[in-house]
Amino acid sequence: MEAQLIETALLNFMNFQTLIATKASRIKQVAGNDMLLEFGTRRAQEADAAVWGARAAYIAGFDATSNMLAGQKFGIPTKGTHAHSWVQSFASEQEAFNTYAKVLPDFVSLLVDTFDTLKSGVPHAIETAKMLESMGKRLGSIRLDSGDLAYLSIKARKMLDDAGLAYVKIVASNDLDENTIFNLKAQGARIDTWGVGTQLITASDQPSLGGVYKLVEHEMDGVIVPTIKISGNPEKVTTPGKKDVYRIIDRVTGKATADYICFPDEEKPHDGLRLKLFNPQHPFLQKYVRNYDAVSMLVPVFEQGIQVYELPSLDEIRDYHKEQLAIFWPEYLRKLNPEFYRINISEKAWELKQRMMAEHMEEEE
Amino acid sequence: MEAQLIETALLNFMNFQTLIATKASRIKQVAGNDMLLEFGTRRAQEADAAVWGARAAYIAGFDATSNMLAGQKFGIPTKGTHAHSWVQSFASEQEAFNTYAKVLPDFVSLLVDTFDTLKSGVPHAIETAKMLESMGKRLGSIRLDSGDLAYLSIKARKMLDDAGLAYVKIVASNDLDENTIFNLKAQGARIDTWGVGTQLITASDQPSLGGVYKLVEHEMDGVIVPTIKISGNPEKVTTPGKKDVYRIIDRVTGKATADYICFPDEEKPHDGLRLKLFNPQHPFLQKYVRNYDAVSMLVPVFEQGIQVYELPSLDEIRDYHKEQLAIFWPEYLRKLNPEFYRINISEKAWELKQRMMAEHMEEEE
Repeated sequence: MEAQLIETALLNFMNFQTLIATKASRIKQVAGNDMLLEFGTRRAQEADAAVWGARAAYIAGFDATSNMLAGQKFGIPTKGTHAHSWVQSFASEQEAFNTYAKVLPDFVSLLVDTFDTLKSGVPHAIETAKMLESMGKRLGSIRLDSGDLAYLSIKARKMLDDAGLAYVKIVASNDLDENTIFNLKAQGARIDTWGVGTQLITASDQPSLGGVYKLVEHEMDGVIVPTIKISGNPEKVTTPGKKDVYRIIDRVTGKATADYICFPDEEKPHDGLRLKLFNPQHPFLQKYVRNYDAVSMLVPVFEQGIQVYELPSLDEIRDYHKEQLAIFWPEYLRKLNPEFYRINISEKAWELKQRMMAEHMEEEE
Repeated sequence: MEAQLIETALLNFMNFQTLIATKASRIKQVAGNDMLLEFGTRRAQEADAAVWGARAAYIAGFDATSNMLAGQKFGIPTKGTHAHSWVQSFASEQEAFNTYAKVLPDFVSLLVDTFDTLKSGVPHAIETAKMLESMGKRLGSIRLDSGDLAYLSIKARKMLDDAGLAYVKIVASNDLDENTIFNLKAQGARIDTWGVGTQLITASDQPSLGGVYKLVEHEMDGVIVPTIKISGNPEKVTTPGKKDVYRIIDRVTGKATADYICFPDEEKPHDGLRLKLFNPQHPFLQKYVRNYDAVSMLVPVFEQGIQVYELPSLDEIRDYHKEQLAIFWPEYLRKLNPEFYRINISEKAWELKQRMMAEHMEEEE
């Protein structure tokens, strides 16, 4: 009964936050050590999505968000620049830049594309940088927000360098995602920091993650019995019974070999236990592993209604993501044509599933 | 200053809710008089998106939602069926159906695909319908949630009809959107009610609406002056100055001809005033209209910090959407290759924009 009550809420939270963390992780893998800023609030699917999406992005390696509520609520660093309207509300771009720089001299990032990036924005930013130098301060960055970001960043970098401003960083934004960042870097764009908005916060190329929540066993007349949901789509047939999940880590390479699912009453996988990883659909795809560590992936959170799990801090979660990512071969992580990571079930779990499917087929004859 | 403070929140709310209402409206146009149920909560991008998305779907013509909070908060009708886990938690599907029917005999919808739709689910539902008849009640509907919905609905309809249950409706769900519904109807599927989830609540094929918020004028030395944002992308250049927007309705057909944007100090369009609708990029695309009504699309909401607008009820908003949709020719509304609806600006507004762009180009020489 309790499981039924929380089903939809749990799916809503886990599907969305996992989706955005996954998208952010893909962007992080492409961006390397460049700084990543989450800029999606105005396009997020309502307010909760903006705030929890900013948190998911931070977990997956983003450095900061422009969402001030996420900053306040979770302690995520916040960063941003002024709006185009700031520039438009002054008589000149130069006056707008100088006024901004005087008010916040230690955190100046100037948006240079209100009128014309190379003819107006960058020259005015250089003037403001010189003014800041005369105050003993330094311009932090300029931000490019339209036009060809490869061309403009290369030109702007040269203009800044020629003006003795090699320390000024270049921030870019405008419908970026892992594909555009990958291509811009391949073209030699001189961008230090990426502001990523719409594409990240909505996971635009696939805006939902299809997590489901299915009953695997229940009590009947005081006895726990497994149960199954059958479907015309074979991948949607559930695997009956309560199960454990282990991540199998090769002791030589330190890398993950597979995840392994078995029943709690089976011998737990451990170093020295020869484990059969098999693909029942394709029997030739089987292998045995022996020299491994088996890390349990399930952690008790509530027991008898009492929370027994100490919630990790946000930075601990962030570190965990980074550590876990490091134990996967890059072959599994690349976006284009990745190798599939194995999720294997024990022969016993496989056999129960086959038997229960067969029983239901018989009943219906 | 106040406008700046609310910018991001306004964009977030309006972009998302307009997006989902638009998607829902497209689905409604295809579904005609069939009943439409919003079923997206578990895949919505966080909780706010589920609740406000359910409201947007209702505005655009959906009949009910499975989101109970949206039902409570806005008075939207709520509808749903039991989960697969209900069936799985009984010794047999028949027992599960009968138990459910006895508890809620006036609102029975049975999910028939837990094991096998035609061999198990529909025959058991027919048994339960007979039991309900013996209680003086009627089975409301069965729900198909997997497999080929065209084939299954035609077969299930025949089985129900042959059992004397022509009154039992058929509900379908499973990743539906306007395209799948259009095709299923074209194939003769016998579906009365559509449960639409993921594709609607995330606007899956385009999960963001690119609304922006730009400064058009500001006060300088006590004088209101127009301002412009220039961009390398011509469609992103703003039109300076505060403007009025009118919907031009042809008096003969009652249909919308165009939306017309002009300055408040221009003569307001009215019947008898010959109005030039021109496309400055393509001068041959111009026409004059005379016999029309001009409906102002801007309504004051706050004046001097006081709310002067009486908020309409949800059903009034829903009716307004329906009325507005009816004044557009279907040519503009069809999803595949629609004709573009004209949004025209006055020659005066066009000239100011050209002059201000030219001024900025001169400054930068």
